[in-house]
Amino acid sequence: MLTPFKNHLSKHFAFLEGKKILLAISGGLDSMVMLHLFQQLPYAITIAHCNFQLRGIESDGDEEFIREYAQKHTIPIAVSRFDTEAFATDSKQSIQLAARELRYTWFQELLREKQLDYCATAHHLDDNLETFLINLTRGTGLEGLTGIPKHNGAIIRPLLPFSRDAILTYATKHGIEWREDSSNASDKYLRNKLRHDVIPTLKSLNPSFLDSFQDTLLHLQQSQSLADDALAIVGKEILQREGDQYKIDIVQLRRLPNYKAYLYQILKPFHFKAWNDICKLPESQSGKVIYAKEYQLLKDRDFLILSLRNNVNVGEEAAILEDDTICNIDNHKLQLMDSVAYTPVKQKEIFQADKEKLKFPLVVRTWNEGDYFCPAGMKGQKKKLSKFFKDEKFTMNEKQNQLLVCSGNEIVWVVGVRGDHRFEATADTPKIYQIQLL
Amino acid sequence: MLTPFKNHLSKHFAFLEGKKILLAISGGLDSMVMLHLFQQLPYAITIAHCNFQLRGIESDGDEEFIREYAQKHTIPIAVSRFDTEAFATDSKQSIQLAARELRYTWFQELLREKQLDYCATAHHLDDNLETFLINLTRGTGLEGLTGIPKHNGAIIRPLLPFSRDAILTYATKHGIEWREDSSNASDKYLRNKLRHDVIPTLKSLNPSFLDSFQDTLLHLQQSQSLADDALAIVGKEILQREGDQYKIDIVQLRRLPNYKAYLYQILKPFHFKAWNDICKLPESQSGKVIYAKEYQLLKDRDFLILSLRNNVNVGEEAAILEDDTICNIDNHKLQLMDSVAYTPVKQKEIFQADKEKLKFPLVVRTWNEGDYFCPAGMKGQKKKLSKFFKDEKFTMNEKQNQLLVCSGNEIVWVVGVRGDHRFEATADTPKIYQIQLL
Repeated sequence: MLTPFKNHLSKHFAFLEGKKILLAISGGLDSMVMLHLFQQLPYAITIAHCNFQLRGIESDGDEEFIREYAQKHTIPIAVSRFDTEAFATDSKQSIQLAARELRYTWFQELLREKQLDYCATAHHLDDNLETFLINLTRGTGLEGLTGIPKHNGAIIRPLLPFSRDAILTYATKHGIEWREDSSNASDKYLRNKLRHDVIPTLKSLNPSFLDSFQDTLLHLQQSQSLADDALAIVGKEILQREGDQYKIDIVQLRRLPNYKAYLYQILKPFHFKAWNDICKLPESQSGKVIYAKEYQLLKDRDFLILSLRNNVNVGEEAAILEDDTICNIDNHKLQLMDSVAYTPVKQKEIFQADKEKLKFPLVVRTWNEGDYFCPAGMKGQKKKLSKFFKDEKFTMNEKQNQLLVCSGNEIVWVVGVRGDHRFEATADTPKIYQIQLL
Repeated sequence: MLTPFKNHLSKHFAFLEGKKILLAISGGLDSMVMLHLFQQLPYAITIAHCNFQLRGIESDGDEEFIREYAQKHTIPIAVSRFDTEAFATDSKQSIQLAARELRYTWFQELLREKQLDYCATAHHLDDNLETFLINLTRGTGLEGLTGIPKHNGAIIRPLLPFSRDAILTYATKHGIEWREDSSNASDKYLRNKLRHDVIPTLKSLNPSFLDSFQDTLLHLQQSQSLADDALAIVGKEILQREGDQYKIDIVQLRRLPNYKAYLYQILKPFHFKAWNDICKLPESQSGKVIYAKEYQLLKDRDFLILSLRNNVNVGEEAAILEDDTICNIDNHKLQLMDSVAYTPVKQKEIFQADKEKLKFPLVVRTWNEGDYFCPAGMKGQKKKLSKFFKDEKFTMNEKQNQLLVCSGNEIVWVVGVRGDHRFEATADTPKIYQIQLL
């Protein structure tokens, strides 16, 4: 494997010559083989090891194992210990995504600090195939089937053309020791099912399956690059940037026979989920909005307007999705908390709602003619909002700027002023959803 | 299933209204369900049944079964019996491809003859998934992963969004009878392995796998349509038609950072296999040629010239690939036969060579200065070709037009005139390759 590895480096990674390389070493089979290969080549290498502290003494054992190896072979080493679970909880991510973010952020820091040029990870051909199948299983687009990039900024993946079998054979032949890899624990079940139940059958149907899979990936990458070209050429004509937002010209868009394909490609980076609704948006009424986690797409006469959701001005609407924690509107900020304890005496800045009565996404907006609500403390009696404002001696300006949190068209909270009786939580409410004006 | 089927037709097949539809009915589960569905809808339907005669009385049983069904329900029916095996042998195709060609050719004939509008086949979602996985197993490009088209000319496939489970449930509920499908016999092993070993695992990893697979197909089709757009826009600038051939401007081509992707897409319809060689062709010496079954790609200074292989003129070269059966050059036609019996006395139009001594592709060309050969019957003695022509009293014109079959640069046969001693077969030659001037 050393000779094909060298050939692969000189063909696809010629730019590495004379560079300093950080090797991401978990201690597992793949990374230990990568390390062994690089030790035999004339690169200045440094080991980076992440201790995610997810498996107690086993994780510490991995760290110890790598430290000893580095010392024995006098290779510089950097180790970082992460409180991965706490970070995952704080950043509301899965353990796997959290570990990934910690890992790559730290690698970039190390590269800067130690003035190294590239960071190599040990992803190989079987990883690529498993990722392909995982994405296929979950549902994906072309971007999910083109494989892990072999070179992406400072990250390089020089083992990608090599199979797990080839790596294992090399390790056995050279008596390389390794420890079981803990890094991809959270999708381990999925990977194991594919590794043991699916991939062997595919290989049995075509003994050179992994080779043809590599060709397939190459062809898919090529098609992706053509699709990207089309988007760049055609997209220029239908998409304009205006300040913080993008405008899609619906008339121009609909001249394209395959305009839905362009719409999908344009919007893909913004993680919209309601794909069917988006397809109908060019034909919808003006004013209709579709929300993604961070972005929104508004139909405004002949345009679709794409903007950050939290950049909404008074007079427009903002949405609160069920898993949002913050909503910025104009100069105000609302903090959103799920499953909180009931507080009998509340500040004006806090409203506790009965979550089961809310319809997400909630809407944050200013008042409309005809709005009414059932002010808390009035036993469910209806009151016109204009009357309420008048009674509370709001100025015209205060009235215009008063924010309302609504569920559908029903007012939940006149923000910072009065809650609505219909939505108010009581001591017996099982699920309390709290909105706080910061 | 009737309601979703009706909805699907009105959404995607509105053009069928008032049309006459030919239903391709094998007698299997899928096609019998399609037939049952169409019987309940206001279309004029005709049944088409192919008896491929591949499974003896079973095939005849299928035919009988459909005939009785058609009679009982008074549906017009057309049946065709094919000698599929003979056709496969004659046309050098697999049984499966031969059956496919016979089937679709006959459907088109029937549409014309009986003045019907469309022909519906019963392909469903699981077929689509199996085809996806088969193509993935064999190695493919994006075009192999975008699914069976739901509408392609006069062929429509209205069952594509429905799973085998849904079809089976419908059949059971309505007491529909069916016979085991014989149409895809030759890849049955492959399909069965996928059906029983691979697909259930994928489904177990995501209970709504088939739904997300449908979305995946849609997204891949969209990416394909964008890639096609890029090829149409960019291809115009690098590809020119000139008479019977296409010229690719190498300078323009290489300005594209992803030019290999364009080259692949441009050449894909012409079934070249030596993809690595093609990638190197823009940088190769002028005169280098790469052959596909029917086409050739020639590097000619700043251009790659794509033309039919059999359209070669005297003064140019033609190639004979190992599995070719005919080679046309100028006004001559060579018939090529493998593994023939030894004939001691031959006509001048036939040469029998020792196949193990030949290097494919053979080259067919006219004479070059310095050519020599070892005329048969002269015990291996070398002779300059110009001397041979002179001794045989060739006119200048005959000399210029005399075809030579060569292995590498060595002359195998002075076509229709004299063979070469080095390549001539004897009674003991194990593998005889015969070239005949027709």
